Amino acid sequence: MILVIAGGVGAARFLSGLVQAVPPSEVTAVVNTGDDTELHGLSISPDIDTVTYTLSQSIDPERGWGLRNETWRAMESLARFEPVRPAGSSAAPRWFNLGDQDLATHFYRTARLSEGATLSEVTDEIRRAFELEVRIVPMSNDPVRTVVHLESGSVPFQEYFVRLQHSVPVTGVEFVGASTSRFIDDSLITNADTIVIAPSNPIVSIGPIRAIPGVEEALRARREHTVAVSPIVAGAALKGPADRMLVELGHEPTVVGVARMYAPICSTLIIDQQDAHLVSAVESEGVRCIATDTIMSKPGVAKSLAEVAVRATPKQGGHTWPA
Amino acid sequence: MILVIAGGVGAARFLSGLVQAVPPSEVTAVVNTGDDTELHGLSISPDIDTVTYTLSQSIDPERGWGLRNETWRAMESLARFEPVRPAGSSAAPRWFNLGDQDLATHFYRTARLSEGATLSEVTDEIRRAFELEVRIVPMSNDPVRTVVHLESGSVPFQEYFVRLQHSVPVTGVEFVGASTSRFIDDSLITNADTIVIAPSNPIVSIGPIRAIPGVEEALRARREHTVAVSPIVAGAALKGPADRMLVELGHEPTVVGVARMYAPICSTLIIDQQDAHLVSAVESEGVRCIATDTIMSKPGVAKSLAEVAVRATPKQGGHTWPA
Repeated sequence: MILVIAGGVGAARFLSGLVQAVPPSEVTAVVNTGDDTELHGLSISPDIDTVTYTLSQSIDPERGWGLRNETWRAMESLARFEPVRPAGSSAAPRWFNLGDQDLATHFYRTARLSEGATLSEVTDEIRRAFELEVRIVPMSNDPVRTVVHLESGSVPFQEYFVRLQHSVPVTGVEFVGASTSRFIDDSLITNADTIVIAPSNPIVSIGPIRAIPGVEEALRARREHTVAVSPIVAGAALKGPADRMLVELGHEPTVVGVARMYAPICSTLIIDQQDAHLVSAVESEGVRCIATDTIMSKPGVAKSLAEVAVRATPKQGGHTWPA
Repeated sequence: MILVIAGGVGAARFLSGLVQAVPPSEVTAVVNTGDDTELHGLSISPDIDTVTYTLSQSIDPERGWGLRNETWRAMESLARFEPVRPAGSSAAPRWFNLGDQDLATHFYRTARLSEGATLSEVTDEIRRAFELEVRIVPMSNDPVRTVVHLESGSVPFQEYFVRLQHSVPVTGVEFVGASTSRFIDDSLITNADTIVIAPSNPIVSIGPIRAIPGVEEALRARREHTVAVSPIVAGAALKGPADRMLVELGHEPTVVGVARMYAPICSTLIIDQQDAHLVSAVESEGVRCIATDTIMSKPGVAKSLAEVAVRATPKQGGHTWPA
């Protein structure tokens, strides 16, 4: 079994390559839920949905989130309520766009959770509704909420990411609820043949998973079988604020900085060809380094990257991939 | 001020005539919330929405509920989850149709209620969002839920009305929560110049309002200024199950039966021309009777009916309508 530690878009693209390289039934993605949110009474899990929609090829390829052929009638109709919303109310926000078809996913999740189902049960049902073989699990069934500290105060992750378009300096990040949360299933880490840390934001996508009690120690114990893919290429994030956030929080926004963050939990870092001149700098951080094509917007790259990743470390029990 | 005791479609049509007959700012509708429901995590108030949408001419004229030019993408997308919904789960029901534009109203209501706003505050905000001058108030800010007893067991009102299409015999009706609920504002009844009981289902639309402690007594005290419009014409309900429900629960499904139910709280009953031969039978129940056109699907009838209604009883304080 291959375990992928996953955030949203970058992880989803990596996973879509991985299922071309190995049988999907041998892949489990454990997905960040720190940026889950509640809007309009609905329970929303953006990273889980991005992974599910991407793997089922239902994702809108232009936006990278939400469903294809989407319409926005519900969101458009919310505009009517803006003039009557009292001062101080945050009802009917329009900055977080929910497509009409996408709403059905949130309706189902919300209703099942209110019936007492766990997030992992609902996530698996939704995965099956999208006819996927890959196992998709939330990092925890307990609520963990990423809060971003700004100079002006603290905001929930989605307010930073979507409403403020991650264009404001970050002074800190906190994973509220993490310290009392339980990891979804310790055996996922213990029993995985290979663990891949997907090319996701190290701080706000992978960070919440590492913050769950026991996960960091469990990953350290599996360091020899763990490979990470750098989300930083040539000093920049391919998508999102990872590069600026790394700088703002005292890290180096390069593959070397990524290596330093992941060295305790992985033995190999895959970096892009563009950073090939940094291989020895990465290795001086104590991890093996492989330079290859990692920019998955080009056809075929996700699959070849996944093949490199699964071959990058020795497999527990001597398995080889692909079978 | 004219107070209209209102259910859904019939009351909404009467109100749309009334605002042509008198200044809308002098009209208050107190609306049944016994058939409110929660679906997908959303708070839904069908009668309030029907009144609001009808008065703002946003209603779909064919269906009589929901918004014009509606689409159903969210509902259609729910179908995906039916195969994976566990046995015993009622998540993602598709029998209660919610249009994509209509969802925005439920999003706003749900978010405001979860912020701590009362249903009357939210209802007023939504009324203003639809640019209405008529005051629309829920019968109570406390939850009252109409439960329909069937031979096979009990179901919430919307399950009877929508899912079962009110095609099963009713053995009883119960207003859960009514006995501990508070009427929205006693002064509405005390201070109204005229009170009109709209042509709504006497049992499940007007019944919940009468079941709130104090309302029946307050209405009895205002009997001389109260007029009702019969929802039964020629022995049948114009819409919905009122006729069968009257029979099943031991009432007579005629204007005489309606007169008997309303005699304690109204001094005048308006019936349709088709029932003109029953005027003296109605009056033998102790109410004055006026026969006129009441079928509001014909143009102009709602306005003329409203004019008859506001002139039907002496006004408190000697006011006359229209001003």
